[in-house]
Amino acid sequence: MPELRKDPVIGRWVIIATERGKRPSDFGSVIENKKRGFCPFCEGNEHITPPEILAYRKPGTQANKPGWNVRVVPNKFPALQIEGELDKRGDGMFDKMNGIGAHEVIIETPDHNKGIADLDITSIESVFWAYRARLQDLKKDKRFKYILIFKNHGAAAGASLEHSHTQLIATPIVPKRVMEELKEAKNYYEYKERCIFCDIIRQEMKDNIRVVCQNDKFITIAPFASRFPFEMWLLPKFHICAYEDMEEKMYILLAELLKETLLRLKKTLTNPPYNFIIHTTPARQNDLEYYHWHIEIIPKLTKVAGFEWGSGFYINPTPPEEATKYLKEVKI
Amino acid sequence: MPELRKDPVIGRWVIIATERGKRPSDFGSVIENKKRGFCPFCEGNEHITPPEILAYRKPGTQANKPGWNVRVVPNKFPALQIEGELDKRGDGMFDKMNGIGAHEVIIETPDHNKGIADLDITSIESVFWAYRARLQDLKKDKRFKYILIFKNHGAAAGASLEHSHTQLIATPIVPKRVMEELKEAKNYYEYKERCIFCDIIRQEMKDNIRVVCQNDKFITIAPFASRFPFEMWLLPKFHICAYEDMEEKMYILLAELLKETLLRLKKTLTNPPYNFIIHTTPARQNDLEYYHWHIEIIPKLTKVAGFEWGSGFYINPTPPEEATKYLKEVKI
Repeated sequence: MPELRKDPVIGRWVIIATERGKRPSDFGSVIENKKRGFCPFCEGNEHITPPEILAYRKPGTQANKPGWNVRVVPNKFPALQIEGELDKRGDGMFDKMNGIGAHEVIIETPDHNKGIADLDITSIESVFWAYRARLQDLKKDKRFKYILIFKNHGAAAGASLEHSHTQLIATPIVPKRVMEELKEAKNYYEYKERCIFCDIIRQEMKDNIRVVCQNDKFITIAPFASRFPFEMWLLPKFHICAYEDMEEKMYILLAELLKETLLRLKKTLTNPPYNFIIHTTPARQNDLEYYHWHIEIIPKLTKVAGFEWGSGFYINPTPPEEATKYLKEVKI
Repeated sequence: MPELRKDPVIGRWVIIATERGKRPSDFGSVIENKKRGFCPFCEGNEHITPPEILAYRKPGTQANKPGWNVRVVPNKFPALQIEGELDKRGDGMFDKMNGIGAHEVIIETPDHNKGIADLDITSIESVFWAYRARLQDLKKDKRFKYILIFKNHGAAAGASLEHSHTQLIATPIVPKRVMEELKEAKNYYEYKERCIFCDIIRQEMKDNIRVVCQNDKFITIAPFASRFPFEMWLLPKFHICAYEDMEEKMYILLAELLKETLLRLKKTLTNPPYNFIIHTTPARQNDLEYYHWHIEIIPKLTKVAGFEWGSGFYINPTPPEEATKYLKEVKI
């Protein structure tokens, strides 16, 4: 069973894969295990993955057979294990617990050659529905405190398989980065009695120098203190803390704006590697006035080096106002 | 002038290079600008760098001419600018200040083909003396709150020049990551009345399953909650919070153990890319009972992807106990 260990100084938890530890000789060949010709996520290869948890299928097709549009399966090599008890315990001065959690893969399309930005809007909407269904289901499990949904696009951004997919990891603690964001948003709310994200949206719409694109209900901005060149945040214009609690008709509008955002990124930078992460509220905290769910999109164009590791500070060579100009002007 | 901007939610500062903003076409060719045959850090090319701030030289040699062992120069393309006032100000709801600071390069050897692990122990000691002299000097400037010393080894770890060097960045605020470490160490001290790092050293020496190497005064461990495969921390066995305040005779012992540590890493993993970072106390806080300076060494073997960005959580496929075995057993 994987083990969760807490750094005694900084309080950061780490998942240690105790069972199949990687040896020195396992590193180095990590990068290019894609394009071997065979893809476990392609239509027709459903028997290669663990049995599906959820699939949106054409009428009359069978589970774990072709005929699906979106398919959710357990990760074959999970970072955390679904069965078992948490069993928190000490080890001398150190703290650890069992690596309990869920690790799922949302296969976004049966077509190996399409990225999420290439799908039509209703197909992207289906992907968003799958996220929603999995969040609703996993939040019922009391062992899970947070469900993180994220996408790695391109080998440099950490994708080990080329076929377009999203990952979901449910964790038995609220991750440090999420806790910080919640804490600071709460501080702001206590001081101003306003949601900080709502304030950011108002300020950005007024300044109009970092707005990349928008529709009636959603907006994409290049954030004021962007860590990375061409970093973007996509937010609902209305206040809501939980991704899965939006009205049903919102998901198609979200799909529309995510498609436009990702197409702009793809065209401006020739299909760059990127990560996107859904920042949403922890389990059983679906009513926060101070938090506001959103998507962070991080292109992988620069390297994180000693300075960033040591300081938590970032050096961004492209001001967000300039990034916005390029992203707005590109033909999509 | 570069600009420092504060993320309004998470409180993280970012350095935005407002002057020479990188355009979309500037990315992609970033990786391989080394080995063009010409190296500005090699002996004989001293006129290419800005004039030296400090150099340890053979008797009778002139500044900015050959004959040095270690040479410190300003970074030709600094992330922060040395001249000017901080000028903290608001911009609507956002906060920013001028990008004031220092950005220096410590060239560790005149020999292009040697890494720091290949130098003899007295040469490494000279590098450590240069760090000390620059820390002492820059801490006198009241505008600087922190001085971060770090090394990027190999292109994958962010090194843009191959010739072995360390960087130093003095910042007008204490970076977030440093603040967190100080805060948590202080919490522990208030609760236990003991330094957490001293406690970690005691526990590790007792357990003896994560000690990679040691001498009389310093120890290298694979930390209990290692974020990365083969991560190591090198700490003084005696309590001291400021790197530059050690007794003079300690630096040769530090050089000895760093050499052994880096040689073990180099041999175990075939010269992997890595970062090392000196974690020391902020300026004008040289007497902290709760903090303990140390070096973190982070090999760059895995990719930081969406999960890590979203959570601040890490997945480490090599338990530190196993990494220790490999690092201890390798012939150096």
